[in-house]
Amino acid sequence: MEKIVLAYSGGLDTSVIIPWLKDNYECEIIAVCVDVGQGEELTGLKEKGINSGASKVYIIDAKEELVKEYIYPTMKAGAIYENEYLLGTSFARPLIAKKLVEVAHKEGATAIAHGATGKGNDQVRFEVSIKALDPNMKIIAPWRIWELKSREDEIDYAVKKGVKVTATKDKIYSMDRNIWHLSHEGGDLEDPWNEHNPDMYEMTAKLDETPDEPEYVILEFERGVPVSVNGKKYSPLGLIEKLNEIGGRHGVGIVDVVENRLVGMKSRGVYETPGGTLLYKAHEALEHLCLDKDTYHFKGYVAQKYAELVYNGLWFSPLKKALDAFVDKTQENVTGMVKLKLYKGNVIMAGSYSPYSLYDKDYATFGEDEVYNQRDADGFINLFGLPLKIGAMVEKKNAGKELAV
Amino acid sequence: MEKIVLAYSGGLDTSVIIPWLKDNYECEIIAVCVDVGQGEELTGLKEKGINSGASKVYIIDAKEELVKEYIYPTMKAGAIYENEYLLGTSFARPLIAKKLVEVAHKEGATAIAHGATGKGNDQVRFEVSIKALDPNMKIIAPWRIWELKSREDEIDYAVKKGVKVTATKDKIYSMDRNIWHLSHEGGDLEDPWNEHNPDMYEMTAKLDETPDEPEYVILEFERGVPVSVNGKKYSPLGLIEKLNEIGGRHGVGIVDVVENRLVGMKSRGVYETPGGTLLYKAHEALEHLCLDKDTYHFKGYVAQKYAELVYNGLWFSPLKKALDAFVDKTQENVTGMVKLKLYKGNVIMAGSYSPYSLYDKDYATFGEDEVYNQRDADGFINLFGLPLKIGAMVEKKNAGKELAV
Amino acid sequence: MEKIVLAYSGGLDTSVIIPWLKDNYECEIIAVCVDVGQGEELTGLKEKGINSGASKVYIIDAKEELVKEYIYPTMKAGAIYENEYLLGTSFARPLIAKKLVEVAHKEGATAIAHGATGKGNDQVRFEVSIKALDPNMKIIAPWRIWELKSREDEIDYAVKKGVKVTATKDKIYSMDRNIWHLSHEGGDLEDPWNEHNPDMYEMTAKLDETPDEPEYVILEFERGVPVSVNGKKYSPLGLIEKLNEIGGRHGVGIVDVVENRLVGMKSRGVYETPGGTLLYKAHEALEHLCLDKDTYHFKGYVAQKYAELVYNGLWFSPLKKALDAFVDKTQENVTGMVKLKLYKGNVIMAGSYSPYSLYDKDYATFGEDEVYNQRDADGFINLFGLPLKIGAMVEKKNAGKELAV
Amino acid sequence: MEKIVLAYSGGLDTSVIIPWLKDNYECEIIAVCVDVGQGEELTGLKEKGINSGASKVYIIDAKEELVKEYIYPTMKAGAIYENEYLLGTSFARPLIAKKLVEVAHKEGATAIAHGATGKGNDQVRFEVSIKALDPNMKIIAPWRIWELKSREDEIDYAVKKGVKVTATKDKIYSMDRNIWHLSHEGGDLEDPWNEHNPDMYEMTAKLDETPDEPEYVILEFERGVPVSVNGKKYSPLGLIEKLNEIGGRHGVGIVDVVENRLVGMKSRGVYETPGGTLLYKAHEALEHLCLDKDTYHFKGYVAQKYAELVYNGLWFSPLKKALDAFVDKTQENVTGMVKLKLYKGNVIMAGSYSPYSLYDKDYATFGEDEVYNQRDADGFINLFGLPLKIGAMVEKKNAGKELAV
Repeated sequence: MEKIVLAYSGGLDTSVIIPWLKDNYECEIIAVCVDVGQGEELTGLKEKGINSGASKVYIIDAKEELVKEYIYPTMKAGAIYENEYLLGTSFARPLIAKKLVEVAHKEGATAIAHGATGKGNDQVRFEVSIKALDPNMKIIAPWRIWELKSREDEIDYAVKKGVKVTATKDKIYSMDRNIWHLSHEGGDLEDPWNEHNPDMYEMTAKLDETPDEPEYVILEFERGVPVSVNGKKYSPLGLIEKLNEIGGRHGVGIVDVVENRLVGMKSRGVYETPGGTLLYKAHEALEHLCLDKDTYHFKGYVAQKYAELVYNGLWFSPLKKALDAFVDKTQENVTGMVKLKLYKGNVIMAGSYSPYSLYDKDYATFGEDEVYNQRDADGFINLFGLPLKIGAMVEKKNAGKELAV
Repeated sequence: MEKIVLAYSGGLDTSVIIPWLKDNYECEIIAVCVDVGQGEELTGLKEKGINSGASKVYIIDAKEELVKEYIYPTMKAGAIYENEYLLGTSFARPLIAKKLVEVAHKEGATAIAHGATGKGNDQVRFEVSIKALDPNMKIIAPWRIWELKSREDEIDYAVKKGVKVTATKDKIYSMDRNIWHLSHEGGDLEDPWNEHNPDMYEMTAKLDETPDEPEYVILEFERGVPVSVNGKKYSPLGLIEKLNEIGGRHGVGIVDVVENRLVGMKSRGVYETPGGTLLYKAHEALEHLCLDKDTYHFKGYVAQKYAELVYNGLWFSPLKKALDAFVDKTQENVTGMVKLKLYKGNVIMAGSYSPYSLYDKDYATFGEDEVYNQRDADGFINLFGLPLKIGAMVEKKNAGKELAV
Repeated sequence: MEKIVLAYSGGLDTSVIIPWLKDNYECEIIAVCVDVGQGEELTGLKEKGINSGASKVYIIDAKEELVKEYIYPTMKAGAIYENEYLLGTSFARPLIAKKLVEVAHKEGATAIAHGATGKGNDQVRFEVSIKALDPNMKIIAPWRIWELKSREDEIDYAVKKGVKVTATKDKIYSMDRNIWHLSHEGGDLEDPWNEHNPDMYEMTAKLDETPDEPEYVILEFERGVPVSVNGKKYSPLGLIEKLNEIGGRHGVGIVDVVENRLVGMKSRGVYETPGGTLLYKAHEALEHLCLDKDTYHFKGYVAQKYAELVYNGLWFSPLKKALDAFVDKTQENVTGMVKLKLYKGNVIMAGSYSPYSLYDKDYATFGEDEVYNQRDADGFINLFGLPLKIGAMVEKKNAGKELAV
Repeated sequence: MEKIVLAYSGGLDTSVIIPWLKDNYECEIIAVCVDVGQGEELTGLKEKGINSGASKVYIIDAKEELVKEYIYPTMKAGAIYENEYLLGTSFARPLIAKKLVEVAHKEGATAIAHGATGKGNDQVRFEVSIKALDPNMKIIAPWRIWELKSREDEIDYAVKKGVKVTATKDKIYSMDRNIWHLSHEGGDLEDPWNEHNPDMYEMTAKLDETPDEPEYVILEFERGVPVSVNGKKYSPLGLIEKLNEIGGRHGVGIVDVVENRLVGMKSRGVYETPGGTLLYKAHEALEHLCLDKDTYHFKGYVAQKYAELVYNGLWFSPLKKALDAFVDKTQENVTGMVKLKLYKGNVIMAGSYSPYSLYDKDYATFGEDEVYNQRDADGFINLFGLPLKIGAMVEKKNAGKELAV
């Protein structure tokens, strides 16, 4: 009998997909839960999967890999989608796809199924990643095929198939959580004129419940990668968890944005990224100190393209790899530390230091120094401004003439 | 006798420049103070200029022009220098230069002098703008020529020349203020590891002195230009003043950054832009609603180039004008309103609305609709992912082969 | 009975589509042939359409509109897809779509059908343009639906339906022709190692049959738009025809390229664009003379994006309109003339002139002049090179140290 | 006595500089001639330098290094300045600077002098490169300092100092030659309306003297680097020489362009790059076959930036290094061969092949295949066109309304 690997969470959707696949494809189901820090109850998940009809359940801890191989490269690139979104869901999907393909190969499965809907970005991210990793793997997206149109339909189907599901019918928001972020969509957010309700926050304190005293945090980086917090070394995973704890306590990192989905329409989301926001801010500040102007400015274009690629699910594309090579080269001197002050949602620059700092007060201030001779500015301005001057002379020469070519 | 037009503020530097120019150029001085909202005492300035040796003093109110012709275009472009700086000083300089050239023409002056130092951006912005407006105008930058090396030297020179100056010798920061912003440089800011002291703020409340209650503000835009605040229409100048008052009260818009100057070195600045920060945030939110993805993404590149041009003093360049044409075209549907919640330094999105909104919850949510057919996603993903699939097939075909071309 | 508007050429495909639509949709067919210079026999086309079953046949001359509203804007932008392709088919499709929509509105038709295949770019260009012009118009693409898989199938179907078609079964290449270009695809071109055979050329002389004497041609432009050839004014259409005649005679403008289609795969095409190649070359040369460096360089990025948009069928997109605004602004001084020497396929620069030329030999040559003081170069180089110097000093300072942050 | 290293060619300028430096700096002169293929007489150069007053003369063969470390990276990047110039002089200058610095360090010299004029790009390229390699090295540019204003002045000075120079006073063009190219400036080229005279060519046959029979050349690449010509392996230097011979014979690679110098003015140049033109063309064709669309398009932006950096002398900048990392990553599959047909100045694509080709005729042609399902195009177009459709619906909804926000 053929085997199908299913991206499994234990939630309503993927629980219902198991019997549906078995009904429709005459197959065995290998359920795979990739733990990227979604923080759901994993205990009992194996039994739950088996009880829903899977012949095997894998639970794969990919949290450390997510941080090192997905979060850090994206952060080093400075990638932010549409100036707001720190890409928390976007880069988790290709990692999950990679694990699914690995299990499929190990199990000799011929298809991979997922529970993403037909209107979102995640279906694209899953499927494009699978195609990149195994171009011959068959992909099944039940939401685009089946007749179930609502949670009610799903629950009815589960009951009919004898699968026990505990879902209530009144889930308010569609959420996606991992160690980097938590996203909220749907419900009253669908009208962009509605203010979002901070009660939804799960990783982040509401501003009016944050401490009245500021807290300082010092982040150290080596070649663009964070290595310690307040002088203490952490593993990649430990570091993100620590930053989430600190940032979350101070209400940092809430984003509320209407964004352009890849599939042609806009959607509105509220994102919590407490630790990630600290990390981006500190990394950027260190780059302000250590990167020269040309590199910094061009890297801004790269960041935007990088964000588009990651958002669009093109993690395993050749362009993404080439941009990584660019970014890594720029990070060679991004070593140093940044001090941030956290207070009631604010992340305030409180100091930066690097042995590779290109800033030197001796050059920038007004007295004489050996490196910078103020008289050089004469020549600089004359040549820098020459194109405008020539342009003005040409305009002047032509002024008032009726031009006959 | 030749006339020299001097950019005059009444401060120590430009007061000393008057006698110095007269000594060195055998000329008459026309002092011009362009009021861009620096908020200094303008009463008595005429007398002061005359007493310092000027033969004439102009005081020109350019505040409304600054808002309409310089601030709004830059804000519509979304231009932010190095992701942080809202360009407050940068776009004021070309406007001042324009007024200086106008007076020079009216007075028949042959040269323009300014008091900017030889290490900063402002000398470039002044001089390149003057070249663009009158390519034959002579420019004099005393700081790059004279022997005075410090405030002490200047004061001594003033005393010697009988010019009364009231400057003390212990000014802490170098500041530039106009109706859009206030910048701070120098002093203890020169060590980037030092935290800046909020006591320096003049437009902005310190966070621990902001109200404990949030305040909502609604900004309305027509074609990208703000027209009302909380339902009340304002003149451009009045609108910025109103936003400064509101934003300032809530401690909004402080930036502390190490930036790349045009003249080849880095410097560190602290900027206050309370009203401007609200304006940028609201405008950007409206664009999230009203611009399609391709336009929004490409406009991000334009914004970065626009910021570089403005920062570098190229306001009157042909490229700047062409980018304005691009930006104006994108703003045709940027009409609507944005609600912001201000609380202890935070500017929180609290709602957006536009009759031209491209967001429609009916498309984005999960149920069926007439516009979006979920099955279309199959075909979309297959073609969108085809390049990666073909790439993977080629890799697979070549795997393990020792390639001999 | 419902009406369907069909993009009709009189060729095999669209002749067969008429009975097929009538069979499958119970409708009346309005056949529309938009003349963009395809140079096919239009006499008798009305009868042919009627005989094939159409109830009405429109023949619309859109050649002049193609040149003025589609070719000139693209040429002013300098848009070339993937450095090679002058977009001849790409910009004709939206114009045809526009005419189809106009007829559909006039006739009260509810759908538009076209004969483009399911693997190419043209289906996208047609359909996206129709959606942009009338979002509610139904679109029918028979090639993606019907069971006919080859020319043989089509001919059999035509015979069965009593439609007289004259097509032979052995057409070698797939071609698209208009007044700007002629493209060739398919046949032996499908193996990229095969050299294309110049016998296929229809607009262009084979190199070994071109004149042995060079010919000079002078092109004059006003604000980026060509207005005369060799001193004689032409209408837009007449000008392109004249340039095709001249360029074609000398074997100019053949491109043979493997390109990336929008729909995810590559294809190989041979293009003839004799007049267009002259036009692009001359226009570019004039820009070298009249545009300042910043504008020229940024316009290079715009050109690339513009080409992508046009190639992808996004002619009626907001971004395309905004880029046009940018381009038009840059063309204000692109006025002057360019002399080209044509010889055996070569287009050789032989002179350029503009009253707005920013080139002046007095500045560029070695003697002294009033505008450029060589000593300014000292200061310029010192500040321009300062970032590299500071970087080198930092490297030196850190050399050999084991860095402990 | 202090030592000064001089970039020495044996020509008039640098011969005169030797006594001038000795007169003005009380120093010993180490003359360094870096052989980048300028093809001048190097025999006798040592004696000539000594006779002119140098205490030592180095002749350094850097031709192979130029090809491998400077030409190939630039070619792989696809860098072309302002769409025309293949950067032949631009990348030779940093290499020469590097050799000068190496000699200066070996000899313990305190300064480096060069003979580039104050109006050109080369002074910047030399000096910025020296600063990057040794930030403390003193630089002397006699042309910006001395009183000699013409060749006549120089010859008079030489005679006065007893230096034997053989220069005539009537050199027509300013030329720069190396193994990659030959540039011509000055003389009658200074009026851009003048046609250049092909008699000036030294590397390239005049078109009317080229063979009447076409010649085919096959270039093979491994990871973007050329390795063989017509099936025969060559060293990097040998390969360029071979291509120059072939391309030169057929009159290939003449460019005549008005370009924007870094120092603010335009200049006009005629360039001969016969072999380089073949190499760029073949490499680009192979990229058309082997790079996916996203990579190819983004690489186009990188190419433009790369060209600006190289042209501006920023070879040793951090951004240049980071772009190299990007480019190298993109070249991993650029392996294969390209066949070109050369005929009377034309370089005609005659075939391309790669084991990594992403083109496959089975996908691109019209019949069915397993990879591409035409019906997928329906869904693709619907989602790809959705933003335009939604935009049109919004326009329709608002049409005719007087909008009150």
